Amino acid sequence: MKFCRFISSSGGASSAFPRYGILEGENVQEISAAPWTEWSGMGRSFPLTSARLLAPVEPRKIVCVGRNYSAHAAELGNDVPKEPLIFLKPPTSIVGPSDAIVLPKYSRRVEHEGELGLVIGRKCSHLNDQENPLDYVLGYTCVNDVTARDLQKADVQFTRAKGFDTFCPTGPYIESELHPGDLLVEALVNGEVRQSGRTSLMVFPPPFLVRWISRMMTLEPGDLIATGTPSGVGPLVEQDVVDIRIGGIGVLSNPVHAPMA
Amino acid sequence: MKFCRFISSSGGASSAFPRYGILEGENVQEISAAPWTEWSGMGRSFPLTSARLLAPVEPRKIVCVGRNYSAHAAELGNDVPKEPLIFLKPPTSIVGPSDAIVLPKYSRRVEHEGELGLVIGRKCSHLNDQENPLDYVLGYTCVNDVTARDLQKADVQFTRAKGFDTFCPTGPYIESELHPGDLLVEALVNGEVRQSGRTSLMVFPPPFLVRWISRMMTLEPGDLIATGTPSGVGPLVEQDVVDIRIGGIGVLSNPVHAPMA
Repeated sequence: MKFCRFISSSGGASSAFPRYGILEGENVQEISAAPWTEWSGMGRSFPLTSARLLAPVEPRKIVCVGRNYSAHAAELGNDVPKEPLIFLKPPTSIVGPSDAIVLPKYSRRVEHEGELGLVIGRKCSHLNDQENPLDYVLGYTCVNDVTARDLQKADVQFTRAKGFDTFCPTGPYIESELHPGDLLVEALVNGEVRQSGRTSLMVFPPPFLVRWISRMMTLEPGDLIATGTPSGVGPLVEQDVVDIRIGGIGVLSNPVHAPMA
Repeated sequence: MKFCRFISSSGGASSAFPRYGILEGENVQEISAAPWTEWSGMGRSFPLTSARLLAPVEPRKIVCVGRNYSAHAAELGNDVPKEPLIFLKPPTSIVGPSDAIVLPKYSRRVEHEGELGLVIGRKCSHLNDQENPLDYVLGYTCVNDVTARDLQKADVQFTRAKGFDTFCPTGPYIESELHPGDLLVEALVNGEVRQSGRTSLMVFPPPFLVRWISRMMTLEPGDLIATGTPSGVGPLVEQDVVDIRIGGIGVLSNPVHAPMA
């Protein structure tokens, strides 16, 4: 299923608040609550043409993985780590499909990083070797781990460089019927493919990541894991449009805006 | 006022869920909602002796500041940064007063870091130089930024070393009637003072930090900022009790437990 979050412009003012739904063809079937909770159908359908899709997640934490494709590690002059290199992005960095990525005035080099996102469906902690970590994953989505490359190099810690508002476009929905083992992950700038890599080339694949992270911090329903980016990262400038396209999921598209005055 | 979150054992099963309240002498006056929202008095009082205090915050983000006291930067062989060095701890690391800090089996050196915590009261973004950042702070609390020092050194990124479950004891309550400019921050292990420093010695004081962080990421009501630790950090071992004591606030006390099997 394709779980989404949306605002509908049909049905009057009462419908102008965010709801969760399931995309079915040209319609969105409303559901009662977030897909990682106990939800039920509401028996109400909205035409997709009247719906504005929002980020399909509202995570309390966004755990990201660095240098998880060896070609990307190499292009930035880094070795592949022996264990996953993780960092956090703040929830305030999330925006949805079509929302602007706003360039901060503190950086002269902002780059795209297209990534497969895992959305946690069930609380998990200290997963053992017998459990299947993917049983705790609700589904998969596209993530753009936008990064101020100059600040990343200057700061050492990644938090500022990756933590600005609008630096985590996510969506357009969560695809629950998919195996993450060999998906094509691409980033396009103004329609031109810049990044391209298959998830089968990850240094640490999704099941390994979920288990490993769960042994450090409890993963909660709705949490988002961004699994690292393939090679080909590059700059974004004002008026660019950046698409993250993942086979079996879809396309997350965001325009790039100049800094606010 | 002293805002707290608590569970009461008086009043039957219906009272066994977390509520917010205001500490007044030997009683807790219940309030209707979190103190960073629109709350009102509930007209119900619980004896403090029947209340178990929980962490007084449920932040969506915890922004921490590294090397914000020059004596602490020096003790770990670091320079004082030119701009604040920030990083994030996950919300799942928070525990409350008297809760156990659980040593992870992946580390051989876990240390205490006593810190003044700022709790955001009003949403703020891109604060300008004319605004008073402290107008956006609801109040102040004690934070222990527990750190696996060996992993911090090995990983470079601080996320794993500081992100384990139970690695962010916070409390015992939020003191709203206080100026943060010159408070004594101490950490005690088994009753012996190990860390001691005044907030007047911060490299970047609280108003600077709130303004600076707001220009990068929107601060939301309930978010927590941990303002850095004075010198004297040191190891914690099983059966230790660590207290974070801040003048004008109070004492946050937590026992240290062995790893789970």
